[in-house]
Amino acid sequence: MKEVDLIGDERLDYLLAENLRIIQSPSVFSFSLDAVLLAQFVYVPIQKGNIMDLCTGNGIIPLLLSKRTRGNITGVEIQERLAGMAERSFSYNGLEDRLKIINMDLKELPAMLENKKYDVVTCNPPYFPLTEQEEKINSNIHYAIARHEIECTLQDVVRVCSQITKQGGKVAFVHRPGRLLDIISLMRKYRIEPKRLQFVHSKLGKPANTLLIEGIKDGNPDLKILPPLLVYDEKGEYTPEVRKMLFGEEQV
Amino acid sequence: MKEVDLIGDERLDYLLAENLRIIQSPSVFSFSLDAVLLAQFVYVPIQKGNIMDLCTGNGIIPLLLSKRTRGNITGVEIQERLAGMAERSFSYNGLEDRLKIINMDLKELPAMLENKKYDVVTCNPPYFPLTEQEEKINSNIHYAIARHEIECTLQDVVRVCSQITKQGGKVAFVHRPGRLLDIISLMRKYRIEPKRLQFVHSKLGKPANTLLIEGIKDGNPDLKILPPLLVYDEKGEYTPEVRKMLFGEEQV
Repeated sequence: MKEVDLIGDERLDYLLAENLRIIQSPSVFSFSLDAVLLAQFVYVPIQKGNIMDLCTGNGIIPLLLSKRTRGNITGVEIQERLAGMAERSFSYNGLEDRLKIINMDLKELPAMLENKKYDVVTCNPPYFPLTEQEEKINSNIHYAIARHEIECTLQDVVRVCSQITKQGGKVAFVHRPGRLLDIISLMRKYRIEPKRLQFVHSKLGKPANTLLIEGIKDGNPDLKILPPLLVYDEKGEYTPEVRKMLFGEEQV
Repeated sequence: MKEVDLIGDERLDYLLAENLRIIQSPSVFSFSLDAVLLAQFVYVPIQKGNIMDLCTGNGIIPLLLSKRTRGNITGVEIQERLAGMAERSFSYNGLEDRLKIINMDLKELPAMLENKKYDVVTCNPPYFPLTEQEEKINSNIHYAIARHEIECTLQDVVRVCSQITKQGGKVAFVHRPGRLLDIISLMRKYRIEPKRLQFVHSKLGKPANTLLIEGIKDGNPDLKILPPLLVYDEKGEYTPEVRKMLFGEEQV
């Protein structure tokens, strides 16, 4: 077993049934199902390519994508504490050759990268706009930044994704259905043509609670609405589709 | 039994299990499931109100809505032949007091109505843009006008809907998922804020083949994605939801 430095209440959690481990912490950051959904939804080239994950948190999306591609994956995270967790997880899993972390404000990324462009860019951005109701914002600053548009707005995210994506490259987001119109308008504004849209429902007969959307930089208009993704079956258990995402292939 | 004049290959088909009959004709016009879906999807006031259905064809949507509201319903149809079928169906069903037909180009409607505004406006418009591939357009002119944007574009439809709808009134469309981005952009352009969006899938696990969308004139942004509507179950039979729409309440 490799050694890893764990800080405070950090745990080394299992990820999938595939020997991946990820550092999490109840007081700082734990990944959500939404990140897992995005990691399985997005198209990735299998053999090579450069992939960027913005708002990467503890690196959950790069870790999951590392099982779907042999390409290089870079995560960008503004919070130094979370970036540190991601870096230690990448290293613990022996993936430091392919998985990198950049600890910076994504708004500064295009200038830093100069003209480097990516094949695929993913982002699970903060969902909630900054409204007047400040009391609703989590008083834990790590969670507040991850969930609310404190350090970046949806417009910042979509603009930066477009700036760092190759022509013909793919950009995928996970977000709340209530922001569908915003995200579609912004994608088109920044020349990311929406191509695949999938809604996630907790179970059949319930309104969607999550959306997954993928667009192509300078692509042609041709949007497909994928089959709905259901998280739970009628008995309240994970559907086979989601079980596979969370726990990997069924073991015989 | 009332008498009705049937022209050519017209038939007097049953509609629901509720004593409604509708004139159809294989060579001129038969209603589609999409019209039935729209008629059950749209909000309607129960006791009174003025409802307008554009591109009404043989009047299928006014006929179905007449079971959901005691208000007045007007259908607009550009094809005289179809408008005549609708008028005779309304009359055959004894609904001529509440259901009217206007045989005109919808683009001329706002000027004709002057300042009269409606509580609810529905439209099952022609789905297909006029492209270069003219050979794909149905050579039957009645079907061609109903299916292709020959006499009106989606923009015409959305603009006119907005012009004739009260502030706070509702506008609902059925369309193809591939036009989602167009329809949303046009609705917002013409101040109809999308509020309810539902995708129709032939069965679970299949991409959506139809969308239903309802907006409010000058409404506040707050879009809800409804549960997916499935047409067929695993055995290839209508789901209970669709069976009820097509055939009315189950008879015991």
